[in-house]
Amino acid sequence: MDRCDRLAEFTDVPGIIHRTFCSPAMARLHDALRGWMTAAGMTCRVDAAGNFLGRFNPTADPDAPALLIGSHLDTVPNAGRYDGPLGVMLGLAVVECVIERETKLPFAIEVVGFSEEEGVRFGTPFIGSRALVGDCDAPLLSLVDHGGVSAASALKEFGCDVTQIAAAAIDPATVIGFIEPHIEQGPVLQSQDQPLGIVTAIAGQARGAATFIGTAGHAGTVPMELRRDALCAAAEWIAMVERLGKETPGLVATVGFIEASPNVGNVIPGETRLKIDVRHADDAERKRAVTTLETLAHELAKRRGVTFHFAETHSHRAVPMDFSLTATLERSLSDMGLSSVRLVSGAGHDAAILARHVPTAVLFIRCKDGISHHPDESVTLDDVTVALESLWRSFVDLSLRERSADAAFRSPI
Amino acid sequence: MDRCDRLAEFTDVPGIIHRTFCSPAMARLHDALRGWMTAAGMTCRVDAAGNFLGRFNPTADPDAPALLIGSHLDTVPNAGRYDGPLGVMLGLAVVECVIERETKLPFAIEVVGFSEEEGVRFGTPFIGSRALVGDCDAPLLSLVDHGGVSAASALKEFGCDVTQIAAAAIDPATVIGFIEPHIEQGPVLQSQDQPLGIVTAIAGQARGAATFIGTAGHAGTVPMELRRDALCAAAEWIAMVERLGKETPGLVATVGFIEASPNVGNVIPGETRLKIDVRHADDAERKRAVTTLETLAHELAKRRGVTFHFAETHSHRAVPMDFSLTATLERSLSDMGLSSVRLVSGAGHDAAILARHVPTAVLFIRCKDGISHHPDESVTLDDVTVALESLWRSFVDLSLRERSADAAFRSPI
Repeated sequence: MDRCDRLAEFTDVPGIIHRTFCSPAMARLHDALRGWMTAAGMTCRVDAAGNFLGRFNPTADPDAPALLIGSHLDTVPNAGRYDGPLGVMLGLAVVECVIERETKLPFAIEVVGFSEEEGVRFGTPFIGSRALVGDCDAPLLSLVDHGGVSAASALKEFGCDVTQIAAAAIDPATVIGFIEPHIEQGPVLQSQDQPLGIVTAIAGQARGAATFIGTAGHAGTVPMELRRDALCAAAEWIAMVERLGKETPGLVATVGFIEASPNVGNVIPGETRLKIDVRHADDAERKRAVTTLETLAHELAKRRGVTFHFAETHSHRAVPMDFSLTATLERSLSDMGLSSVRLVSGAGHDAAILARHVPTAVLFIRCKDGISHHPDESVTLDDVTVALESLWRSFVDLSLRERSADAAFRSPI
Repeated sequence: MDRCDRLAEFTDVPGIIHRTFCSPAMARLHDALRGWMTAAGMTCRVDAAGNFLGRFNPTADPDAPALLIGSHLDTVPNAGRYDGPLGVMLGLAVVECVIERETKLPFAIEVVGFSEEEGVRFGTPFIGSRALVGDCDAPLLSLVDHGGVSAASALKEFGCDVTQIAAAAIDPATVIGFIEPHIEQGPVLQSQDQPLGIVTAIAGQARGAATFIGTAGHAGTVPMELRRDALCAAAEWIAMVERLGKETPGLVATVGFIEASPNVGNVIPGETRLKIDVRHADDAERKRAVTTLETLAHELAKRRGVTFHFAETHSHRAVPMDFSLTATLERSLSDMGLSSVRLVSGAGHDAAILARHVPTAVLFIRCKDGISHHPDESVTLDDVTVALESLWRSFVDLSLRERSADAAFRSPI
């Protein structure tokens, strides 16, 4: 946690935490990481996509398979200090724990600090993890930031050899799996009074733009029964969105944006525009929810004599976490006498990118009041200590399995 | 109606209809009125508040009591051509009708074109009619427009003697009453397939600012049951506002303005601000409605764990129209075989100012789709013809009553 405080000092904008892809602050942060990891006997490098990788290999085999652990190093503007960096620091702490406890491991540990996850500089997230799975393509590299600098140019300036970006991709055959420790960014663990949660899936998501068009009119002269009030129609739908969210287990459905026209106190709104966000771990459930909400909107619009338009503006599928690796984390919790809180992650994570290529799991750490992306982001030393213990126990568990029958499927140790 | 077309050409802003208090366009419009009214044998003057008055006195008594008829001559920006001017032109048309039909009247007709009703130039409406009832006071005259010009200066530049503004007040003893013909500005007459409506009262109005404060949060990570969504709370209240409006006869209740924070598609709204407008012909009903809505909002806020703030930002009382004068108009409709549609005017009118001092009535003329304050404002020749006939019949009716017993209460004819 002290290290997270130290990393928070590396910022593009003095006074707040704001650290973007390949910024000078990120380079200075890498220097700090390099210092700590080198001191722990790790070998550090920055790949062609600006990801920081520190390898600890306690085996005799220089090509030993690695268990990846970490998260991202970039932040949103005016961020907290734990979203991302805490996962990387827990990776380093596990290595230090392994050394301190003289734990024998039949695999290497590769601590990953992804270069980009928040999508701030180029408007597209996951640049770092996409490179690690060989998906950092030309269109991604040619995106430009607000200053007109392309991602490729930013990488070059950062000292990366962009021509080698394909080589940044990991070979799944040499990777045991990826564990991402991350703050929950939600209030579930706090509400259940538990320090840690196990992510079963990263939710799929649909975003849509909805518009109700009625008829504007004088708030004094148009009787209630002759109105075609676009805001009343929208309000009825917002209630339906909320109700469906509450009635459907695992669904979250949110209207976060609303805009009425002409938006004047004494004029009946003629048009209301909304943005909706629907997430679920089961893609079929999510799609069913969106279809239901569309149908309900068309029905209420017809009944009210208003028109309804809907366009899905974005969607991505749910990503289930690896059953075995997740079970390993879960076992560590029960061994420690902790309840096993299973969670679907409503937020996206680098784990969602990695999971399509290697066994992946996410360990959520309770954060105060569910606050993230804000300076008030907060975790307790106790919770982080429990997280570290859980991770170390999982590593031990995995080492036993690697040594046993499972190991036969991998390169010999 | 041709004259309304002609008056529409007098505008401060070429290409649209936009005519404000004491503008050069208003002066040119006065010239046109003077031409028409003088030709009809009327005596024209502009009072100290910029009101245009054309007097037709068919009696032998130069101080004969007058029946006032008219409306306002100013417009909103990008206005239609009938809101206001049609009432003045119907006044002139009644005079011409009286002359043409050789109707004997025991009173004068004073056609009034109020200088200001819309509140555009000084942000406060009814300057013209307030002067006519002796309520154009120093604070009103010292209001300044966007160019820093005071109402008093504007009047002086228009050629008015502001020192005589108190003298612009009518003596109720010399006024039989005031009739304001005006487009409905609502869809009731059209929906009931009737050309004319009789206003029973100008509705009282309350405006308020409401705020729901919940907790912003990540649309993906906060489960539905842990949310304190300020927009969902607002939506529930909007539905209650609409329901109360529909269930309470004569009430109109509108949420015309909404603003959510942070108003981003993937963030649960932490705050929602609304503006509400409540109108009713019965002040007690209106106040009860506002209190009910406040109570309902506090209840739902408590249930949802959000807070609710409400402040009434404006209110004015309802103004009933004169029973006898209204009955006269109503009789003319039934004599013509028309249904008597009684309406409460949700919009404010000069009649609301006059009604506190002299018997006042408003005749509504059907307008297409209830549209006003817009170039699409439209009336039919048939409806205007019926309105003129109704007004002439009412004048005849009033003349009979003036000649009979009622007349004993007034100056002898």
